[in-house]
Amino acid sequence: MIRAILISIGEELLTGTVVNTNAATLSEELLALGIPVRAHLTVGDVREEIQETVRQALQEFDLVLITGGLGPTEDDRTTESVAAALGIPLELHPESLERIRAIFEYLGRTMMPNNERQAYLPRGAEILANNRGTAPGFMVAVGRRTVCCLPGVPSELQPMFQQELKPRLLQRYPAKELLELVTYRTFGLPESEVDTLLRGIGQEFSFAYWGLRARYPETHVRFLIRASDSRELEERKARVRERVRHLLGEFIFGEGKEELEKVVGDSLRNRGLKLAVAESCTGGLVADRITNILGSSDYFDRGVVVYSHSAKTDLLGVPVGLIQQYGSVSGPVAEAMARGILARSQADLGLAITGIAGPSGGSEEKPVGTVHVALADKTKVEEKKYLFRGTRDQIKRMSSEVALDRVRRYLLK
Amino acid sequence: MIRAILISIGEELLTGTVVNTNAATLSEELLALGIPVRAHLTVGDVREEIQETVRQALQEFDLVLITGGLGPTEDDRTTESVAAALGIPLELHPESLERIRAIFEYLGRTMMPNNERQAYLPRGAEILANNRGTAPGFMVAVGRRTVCCLPGVPSELQPMFQQELKPRLLQRYPAKELLELVTYRTFGLPESEVDTLLRGIGQEFSFAYWGLRARYPETHVRFLIRASDSRELEERKARVRERVRHLLGEFIFGEGKEELEKVVGDSLRNRGLKLAVAESCTGGLVADRITNILGSSDYFDRGVVVYSHSAKTDLLGVPVGLIQQYGSVSGPVAEAMARGILARSQADLGLAITGIAGPSGGSEEKPVGTVHVALADKTKVEEKKYLFRGTRDQIKRMSSEVALDRVRRYLLK
Repeated sequence: MIRAILISIGEELLTGTVVNTNAATLSEELLALGIPVRAHLTVGDVREEIQETVRQALQEFDLVLITGGLGPTEDDRTTESVAAALGIPLELHPESLERIRAIFEYLGRTMMPNNERQAYLPRGAEILANNRGTAPGFMVAVGRRTVCCLPGVPSELQPMFQQELKPRLLQRYPAKELLELVTYRTFGLPESEVDTLLRGIGQEFSFAYWGLRARYPETHVRFLIRASDSRELEERKARVRERVRHLLGEFIFGEGKEELEKVVGDSLRNRGLKLAVAESCTGGLVADRITNILGSSDYFDRGVVVYSHSAKTDLLGVPVGLIQQYGSVSGPVAEAMARGILARSQADLGLAITGIAGPSGGSEEKPVGTVHVALADKTKVEEKKYLFRGTRDQIKRMSSEVALDRVRRYLLK
Repeated sequence: MIRAILISIGEELLTGTVVNTNAATLSEELLALGIPVRAHLTVGDVREEIQETVRQALQEFDLVLITGGLGPTEDDRTTESVAAALGIPLELHPESLERIRAIFEYLGRTMMPNNERQAYLPRGAEILANNRGTAPGFMVAVGRRTVCCLPGVPSELQPMFQQELKPRLLQRYPAKELLELVTYRTFGLPESEVDTLLRGIGQEFSFAYWGLRARYPETHVRFLIRASDSRELEERKARVRERVRHLLGEFIFGEGKEELEKVVGDSLRNRGLKLAVAESCTGGLVADRITNILGSSDYFDRGVVVYSHSAKTDLLGVPVGLIQQYGSVSGPVAEAMARGILARSQADLGLAITGIAGPSGGSEEKPVGTVHVALADKTKVEEKKYLFRGTRDQIKRMSSEVALDRVRRYLLK
């Protein structure tokens, strides 16, 4: 199997001024072509370092994909350093020079001598045209191995990859097998328990790599499935799916990129039900998540964020006496909030959250992270108490997740 | 000068599922300590690869900082691989085991045998406590060189770096000159205009590097200021501050890590005012942001998310006729919402947002991205129309930012 390395060049990456998003984008693209990326490396704009890095990379990897440092300024040194590493001289590529000239003409700007530098490319290299900027990319074959250089700016890199490099890579390294990444999203089990439940699945499905990814507060189970043709791929995906669904059951709320708020929304729409939400400690996060989904107005009636006692009383009819007796973070108040929003809306389900997000405001009896979630329908209300740990953000996020998951599980019945 | 390398470990980075933000964050932090990072390297969860990578890195770099792969699962292999690279055996660290046990006890969960693995650490290593999760970090001195391992999850990594590693690095590698990163947060000007306004500031302040960082929808201006002692540093910071504040004026809303919602909250508290919010297209995001700040109950009275016409009428008293005449995304409805939430709450200011977040639901007259924001006090209401571009998420975020900024500017007067 072909092994690739991505080399990113630029001081702005090493000072942390720019986050390297190219590495992730290209890794995903290459994987889909059946070329796994096995390393990312970032170095600065230093000639010797680039040269040495490329030389070493070519000893270990089949495909060396380099981004950045193709600009017109003095500290753009990728092309000359790569050529030196390969022992190939630079020569003027007239077509690229013409292209650069044309861009300057089009923009009505004067071309600087340093822009000409961008048209000097390694002799014999295959040129990758840049439709969004002046820097051409290039590709050099070194036996079966390949070195490619692309610009670092994502808006130039991405079209060049898609239109110029991808077809050449497909031709040069035809995929021997199909690869597909499948993700199962779970909530409600700690990562280590998911791991324990799935133990041995690697042996069972030798055609797949698998791993867990914590994405607070969810745990995602990912399989990279190999197959020789699409029929085998579908059959293998179905086998993995059945087994994982059997082992993790209702803890799986979605697949692929499906967010919990999307799953809940789809269920509400399918059942023709509307939801209204009363939030205290989550402060609007549940409503925010629900309304991130296009079309949520079909099933989301309204939300209230009741941060003060009077807001709970005015907007939800929570009796003052109830708050005085039990405190606003309590089961009875959560139940009254859920019933209150249901009665005062056009919804079929009322969801309420009250708790202490912290970091202060806790007590011995009700520590930070104490959260009550209640869900009311026309006939009953179900309330449950939780204790979460973490920062204010984490407690808000976990509370919103638990609340949405309660609705999901209610709709499963 | 000390040279550092950052090594990130995890298959999720190599498949492109996760963007490596840790590399940028840590590079910035280390630079501020006077330790330039000269390479970033990412490898997968493969024992031999990690081991070989660490061995090589130690030949070239003074500080080898490793993140990721400290979790409890089988594919977390960093600790054992690093120990092997250093030729040091693992041994049980009882204090860490106790800490892990205590976390499980606190959460009322059963500890799995694989969680114990996290307490096996290289013999003689200095332990870096994890206050946000179960995985301890550690630091091993190899002569003058240092290897550190930290968890990959940013919410665990960042406090561990700040509280545990940073003081130790400062002690081990005292900076020859002082460096401080200063950030000014702006909103309301495009990045290119901020750039133009600051042109020439690099020549003026030769003791500083500066750059812009787009952080949608804000633009942050960053200066890395060098000085030989703390008096000089303070004096230089004051000079930069005065100049930048002069050039950018009220477009600067905060400094350092100050979020807009924090700045707005502090102003409200200082003026003894309370805010209530009525949201349509932002769907709770404004309330969510406000309540992310500890103590927001001091000045945030309540919020309503009025996604349906009936919610606007019931909760805010927006006349049905007004919605019929102008549509729910209109200036008159935004004004009525702001006045409605003010009249029906205990607040001094009523903020309202209505718009079309898209991607569908727009028309020729009111395209996607049309947003009205109104701010009412006891004597008047001010409404303004905006047109934003972008995805649903971006339009929600931009709208929430504009709304909060309106409150900030109101309170400046």
